[in-house]
Amino acid sequence: MSKPLEPIFFSTCEAGLSKNNAGNSCVDFSVAVVLPAGGSGERTGLQTPKQFCKFLNRPLLSYTVQAFERVPWIESIAVVVAKENLGLMTDIIQKFHHRKVKVVHGGSTRHRSIFNGIQALCEGKDGSAVNKPKVVIIHDAVRPFVEEDFLLKIAMAAKEQGAAGAIRPLVSTVIATTPDGYLDHSLQRAKYRASEMPQGFLYDVIYQAYQRCSQSDFEFGTECLDLALQYCGTNAKLIEGPPTLWKVTYKRDLAAAESIIKGNLSQSACVITGESMQARDMAKTLQKIVGALEMQVDVIPDLLGDNARSMAKQWNFIQISVNNSFLLEVEEIIRALEETNQSLLYPVVIIWVHLNVSEGLSNSKNMEEPEGMMEFGRGAKLRNILLYGIQLHHSKEVDHWEQLVGRMAEVICALIQDRNPALTGQLLKV
Amino acid sequence: MSKPLEPIFFSTCEAGLSKNNAGNSCVDFSVAVVLPAGGSGERTGLQTPKQFCKFLNRPLLSYTVQAFERVPWIESIAVVVAKENLGLMTDIIQKFHHRKVKVVHGGSTRHRSIFNGIQALCEGKDGSAVNKPKVVIIHDAVRPFVEEDFLLKIAMAAKEQGAAGAIRPLVSTVIATTPDGYLDHSLQRAKYRASEMPQGFLYDVIYQAYQRCSQSDFEFGTECLDLALQYCGTNAKLIEGPPTLWKVTYKRDLAAAESIIKGNLSQSACVITGESMQARDMAKTLQKIVGALEMQVDVIPDLLGDNARSMAKQWNFIQISVNNSFLLEVEEIIRALEETNQSLLYPVVIIWVHLNVSEGLSNSKNMEEPEGMMEFGRGAKLRNILLYGIQLHHSKEVDHWEQLVGRMAEVICALIQDRNPALTGQLLKV
Repeated sequence: MSKPLEPIFFSTCEAGLSKNNAGNSCVDFSVAVVLPAGGSGERTGLQTPKQFCKFLNRPLLSYTVQAFERVPWIESIAVVVAKENLGLMTDIIQKFHHRKVKVVHGGSTRHRSIFNGIQALCEGKDGSAVNKPKVVIIHDAVRPFVEEDFLLKIAMAAKEQGAAGAIRPLVSTVIATTPDGYLDHSLQRAKYRASEMPQGFLYDVIYQAYQRCSQSDFEFGTECLDLALQYCGTNAKLIEGPPTLWKVTYKRDLAAAESIIKGNLSQSACVITGESMQARDMAKTLQKIVGALEMQVDVIPDLLGDNARSMAKQWNFIQISVNNSFLLEVEEIIRALEETNQSLLYPVVIIWVHLNVSEGLSNSKNMEEPEGMMEFGRGAKLRNILLYGIQLHHSKEVDHWEQLVGRMAEVICALIQDRNPALTGQLLKV
Repeated sequence: MSKPLEPIFFSTCEAGLSKNNAGNSCVDFSVAVVLPAGGSGERTGLQTPKQFCKFLNRPLLSYTVQAFERVPWIESIAVVVAKENLGLMTDIIQKFHHRKVKVVHGGSTRHRSIFNGIQALCEGKDGSAVNKPKVVIIHDAVRPFVEEDFLLKIAMAAKEQGAAGAIRPLVSTVIATTPDGYLDHSLQRAKYRASEMPQGFLYDVIYQAYQRCSQSDFEFGTECLDLALQYCGTNAKLIEGPPTLWKVTYKRDLAAAESIIKGNLSQSACVITGESMQARDMAKTLQKIVGALEMQVDVIPDLLGDNARSMAKQWNFIQISVNNSFLLEVEEIIRALEETNQSLLYPVVIIWVHLNVSEGLSNSKNMEEPEGMMEFGRGAKLRNILLYGIQLHHSKEVDHWEQLVGRMAEVICALIQDRNPALTGQLLKV
């Protein structure tokens, strides 16, 4: 099965950098990643360590792995997990088709885990030695929104300076306290920064730093940048990162991460009209209304030929049917989605709009519900496809019709933004 | 109109403190609050300043004001807003019945705004002098989840020590940078804390500090605690605060805040059964299933007598109707909600469950939809009441029936947790 394209997260406008292969031309050295993922996640207040908490059917850690896998110049990713989570990690790799990942046993502290990951990067599958990478990027498993252009900056600076790290402005004032809990003094914000992830190092620098550092560093140290400075004399280049580098720490951060992903998946939709005039007209009206709500809508007549290609860029499909059985058309979309394995990483939404254009019936409660919609929806849900239905009657009164399409647009946007699995198979009215 | 009770946020288990009137017995001095709300909210990436961004139909600032208003020993709240937002603020006060708020013109910097608020606390409505409060608490408009027990600690420490402030452990390592952007050194995390809000002061201390401080302090200073130390010699007592004190800074934080409020509103529901045996049986099964999903369900036969009192504690109602017209029962709930003005602060959910117990009809598509459900839903939505319907057929086969109720429970939980206004008036099937 092939891997689908992914939605573009956080469009960046770095001058001169083309988004999709920003680094291909300039990264002429090997880069690997270490992702320590051994934390227990106490601060989320959840039983599952936070890197394994799921949203939209996928663990946080898989989103982070994917953020690196989609970067063509990153060669391999050592994910370091606690012994008890080795099986869980293997399942994640299989289920979401992660291909660059090497699973590594964690150590008793964060630094020991990172060093295990670094060492594993020059071991082959059978334990044999392989070429070490030139640069290694260290990141947190719980910062899923790191972007290629920022990784490029870190990798380039690491290669040139030996070490590089992301920084952010301080959100709060930092204060020194007296031993008995009183204010001693506060620091001048402008002189300090928060040290964040990712950080990058020449492989030799970080390897040597870990070889030379003390047991106490392994036990209590917090900063890889410090070790590089202390044991290799390498002053890290600091690079201002975007706010999206933030670390998922509390339960509320999981909700925030989910809302970011849902927002990104809801930026556009594809309307499939068939040949009917009414369906095409409705699609145009819908396009206008939904466009004003900041969702871009492409309208295509069917999934044949070139149109099929637009599938791969879409996470939301609206099939308009005129007096028609819903099964055939929806089945066709699902078949096409399965061919491209589109719903592997994110749930795909299909909204079947049943437009009744027959005269004389003006009350939607008289429309018949298609047989088996609910069962069909349950089947699709197992494949990570969320199916909803909307019924409405065509109206020849222009104002009334625009009002109806307006309400439909509201329902469509809500269904796409929420991606609620509990409501699949439902047939809604407007 | 009376004000409804509020959901209890973040239950705390401070030994010896009863949640509801923790401070009544010990706060025998006057306490007022200053809420600077003049920020432009650039970091959210939204046009509206973040304190005025809405979720669940209410601006963030109103949630924060409410967090103080519900504390009985807090007497007044000076909300300091930019001139262009005075009208907006007045509307918020009217719409959400805020009663302790005094609106104050902001200054050109944060410190000038705070000082304006402090001065306004001893001015009467007609400009006359009123008694100054003993203690003043300064907070951020964008930290809506502050709790009474923590405010109590700050107020008591401020009274005793002259100044007190919330602190939190540092999330990231803090580093000092060289002028050309390299790592100079990193701070030992254990010795430093992040200074957060709320902070509390003896009125005389903070007033004097502002009177004595320089124009440069007014212009560039960040910490009120610093001013108290520098100009009054008062070392603030620092108190470790809960993670919920976090500041809504980015757009993602708005999503996080909304998810916290929605979670709190979804902790329990009230099922109204009428006299039917089947409805009562179903309610019990539902109670069991939903209980396992961590939503507590109370079952009552009607809204008469003592039962009416349970209304005030609930944000979610499930009306089970057996072969009945929906309008009567749902109208009764809405009437009762309006009497207590229950939906003023949060949207209330009503789910009308239509249970068909007649024999011979086994396919739910044959059930008739009640007249005017959609219009009724639209009317209720204007009053911040979200109405949804669910239809199902009773089954005598025990396994099948439990499966149906299980699916219904899933839909009910999703509707309550999502509180989606776009889906009101819809009649769902299971």
